[in-house]
Amino acid sequence: MYDMSIQLKENSEKCLYEQIYDYIRLEIREGKLLAGEKLPSTRSLADYLQVARSTVDYAYDQLLSEGYIEAKPYRGYYVCRIEDLQKEIVIPRETIPIEDSEQGEWICDFSPNGVDMSGFPFGVWKRITKNILNDSNNELFAQGEAQGDLNLRITISRYLHSARGVNCRPEQIIVGAGNDYLLMLLEKILGRHVPIAMDNPTYKRAYKIFKSFAYPITTVNMDEGGMQVDALQKEGIRIAYIMPSHQFPTGAVMPIGRRTELLKWASEKEDRYLIEDDYDSEFRYRGKPIPSLQASDEQGKVIYMGTFSKAIAPAIRVSYMVLPQSLLEIYRRDCSFYSCTVSRIDQRILDEFIRDGYFERHLNKMRKLYRDKHDLLLECLKPLSKQIQITGEYAGLHILITSLNGLTEREMVARAACVGVRVYGLSESMVEENSDGKAADSSKTVLLGFGGLSQEEIKEGVSLLISAWTK
Amino acid sequence: MYDMSIQLKENSEKCLYEQIYDYIRLEIREGKLLAGEKLPSTRSLADYLQVARSTVDYAYDQLLSEGYIEAKPYRGYYVCRIEDLQKEIVIPRETIPIEDSEQGEWICDFSPNGVDMSGFPFGVWKRITKNILNDSNNELFAQGEAQGDLNLRITISRYLHSARGVNCRPEQIIVGAGNDYLLMLLEKILGRHVPIAMDNPTYKRAYKIFKSFAYPITTVNMDEGGMQVDALQKEGIRIAYIMPSHQFPTGAVMPIGRRTELLKWASEKEDRYLIEDDYDSEFRYRGKPIPSLQASDEQGKVIYMGTFSKAIAPAIRVSYMVLPQSLLEIYRRDCSFYSCTVSRIDQRILDEFIRDGYFERHLNKMRKLYRDKHDLLLECLKPLSKQIQITGEYAGLHILITSLNGLTEREMVARAACVGVRVYGLSESMVEENSDGKAADSSKTVLLGFGGLSQEEIKEGVSLLISAWTK
Repeated sequence: MYDMSIQLKENSEKCLYEQIYDYIRLEIREGKLLAGEKLPSTRSLADYLQVARSTVDYAYDQLLSEGYIEAKPYRGYYVCRIEDLQKEIVIPRETIPIEDSEQGEWICDFSPNGVDMSGFPFGVWKRITKNILNDSNNELFAQGEAQGDLNLRITISRYLHSARGVNCRPEQIIVGAGNDYLLMLLEKILGRHVPIAMDNPTYKRAYKIFKSFAYPITTVNMDEGGMQVDALQKEGIRIAYIMPSHQFPTGAVMPIGRRTELLKWASEKEDRYLIEDDYDSEFRYRGKPIPSLQASDEQGKVIYMGTFSKAIAPAIRVSYMVLPQSLLEIYRRDCSFYSCTVSRIDQRILDEFIRDGYFERHLNKMRKLYRDKHDLLLECLKPLSKQIQITGEYAGLHILITSLNGLTEREMVARAACVGVRVYGLSESMVEENSDGKAADSSKTVLLGFGGLSQEEIKEGVSLLISAWTK
Repeated sequence: MYDMSIQLKENSEKCLYEQIYDYIRLEIREGKLLAGEKLPSTRSLADYLQVARSTVDYAYDQLLSEGYIEAKPYRGYYVCRIEDLQKEIVIPRETIPIEDSEQGEWICDFSPNGVDMSGFPFGVWKRITKNILNDSNNELFAQGEAQGDLNLRITISRYLHSARGVNCRPEQIIVGAGNDYLLMLLEKILGRHVPIAMDNPTYKRAYKIFKSFAYPITTVNMDEGGMQVDALQKEGIRIAYIMPSHQFPTGAVMPIGRRTELLKWASEKEDRYLIEDDYDSEFRYRGKPIPSLQASDEQGKVIYMGTFSKAIAPAIRVSYMVLPQSLLEIYRRDCSFYSCTVSRIDQRILDEFIRDGYFERHLNKMRKLYRDKHDLLLECLKPLSKQIQITGEYAGLHILITSLNGLTEREMVARAACVGVRVYGLSESMVEENSDGKAADSSKTVLLGFGGLSQEEIKEGVSLLISAWTK
């Protein structure tokens, strides 16, 4: 129990003890103090309120005699249970996110956001944490560098170079608590009203964020090579947001030709940039590694973004952004006073986790785990090979299924729901202003995520889907 | 060692093994692969690059024979030390924040931002963390609620009510990684170009942040009651940023009359609000507790902000913001898709730390620790009682010293620096556009922070100050 900040009035009609009594009585009656809660000791409260101890004694005696509180020998004063009065803490329904409230109603939920937490190395994480939480690491509890601790940035720059071919110095890296936050910071760097181009369909969360910035957004249709560069020339686009290694949701990989075109477009004007969101490049199950676009960027035109939330765990709120030199200078001039949003303890844990090789082992393990699920999903879907076409496979944590037998996306989603299976319409990732769900009518494609499902769930889910879609 | 994302060209003049050899050789020569680093196994790299294992074997053999790498029996291939070639990782000076680089040059630094980490309960924190990092807490590694986990919000709402008289329901609370982040989020809620009033002097970081929002800022002079309400009527001010319990840097407490005036001003128009930054209300050493302004707000006009960074440790990047109902609705409509910036693990640790009573004990301990330093500082300054006037004492982690013997702020700072002591001019907290440090000329006041200093340092620092200021 904390001391109670009772506002005593000296010129009140009521004397001090009555004011204290009234306050506590009301707190109990209104359920703000709950049954079983400990009150501050009379000495402590008197000290805190700067009144005589006897004043608090009087107030407590009155509360005792009226049954609001009870005294436990050697332990102090506690609030009594008063059945009629105690209100329970009511948790309003609205605070529970809709997604959660729909969980549990599904036999199988093919969410593209699901991840497998069974592979998380609790033991290692706990051991590293334990070693770090140590008196000799006092400095970890002090404020760290705005861009993130240098050691972690060195580690990230080496990892990115090695795994993704990204060329950067540690000082180009900004560590932040999640991509959403880094995009907010990027707005401060790029400025206001920056015309931006996005694919359609695209990663809807990024779309919402740019919209909340009031950025004029132009959606650009994709051909087989990804974003069409012609469209960028129009409307004074300054920024293109792309996912060249694995477009969400289509899974498309941008070929080298289109990459070169985009880099050329960006280099034509000083204030043009490409945001490369390399959100799940860690998971690729077939074929050669897809290099990052940043690896080919010689003019400093790519803002490279990545995260550990997908590869380690969503609760690890550590993302990073690699700024080209020109933007780094703006960041330093205008934004470097924003404190880092990741605690130094968490930065240090992650740094050791990567440097000691655990991250690599974890990635290898998860890649195998996800590949097995991916392969199983494709295998289970074979009976439908005449009715559906599969795209976006061999990478990431979801695949796309397009119906060949005339079912629309809406019908596929609805029929799946009837048998307790949740699939996700491609149109949910479409950006369509003022068109009342037209995309959902014309689309024949759904997303099936497999990251968060067990092998048993995948088997059962697909078997239900087959019955729902072929009846 | 991660697999290397080598971009192999099939139609190159060079065969595949040469391309691999060239790539690794260049990595070593350019210092991107460092001496002692382990290369991927030939099997793993061949698998990753989708080439025959013998291709990688050839490349490695060539590198071996030229002395770039060495083979260790049963362990694998490692990069050799090549003295002339290996570049060290050069850490550019500019990445080290200026504050840090000036540390260590001072015999005593009276920074107002210093905190005492010796009181941090490492043992308890470690034990709570250990218990939480447990396979059965799998759900902690999943994405949490955008506003912060409900349990933590319930705990914070109860703490705020009890300690600060704040009246709020858990759903009004938004948890975020630091005040800077919460202010960024608040910009999204309040909107653009919102005219805001701030004290002068004020908390400079908040000023910089509002400026980076391009908010038109009006600085309002303070009288003994704090911000003058008359000035708010002009210029269409919509928001006033205040610290009523303990103004930074002056330490002024806003009396009830001025609070009522401010609340009345805010209630006159629908879109007017008060931001109450209650940044260090935990530390008050004399007198009655100062209630929060939010406690008197009946019209839903106060946005209440607080942080655990000051009370626990700066590395604990957990702050909170209590929104009035009208703004909560805007948040839900427009901003609730922004992911929470604090990891669920950290939220859970903090929640248990508070609920199990450790936070209260920690606060009591720190309050005593800081009070002792505060009292010692005042005691040590007694010999100067004719030369200086002390204000802003009895609360927080700094005091103000105004010279009575004609020394300007600039002279006080400079003379202190000559004896190795750092004090902070009040003018550093002044907002003065286009005036070239005029405030520093007219000010005769410096800030002395004591939170981060030991008792010995305080004694030595003050004794040096006395010699510097009275010679």
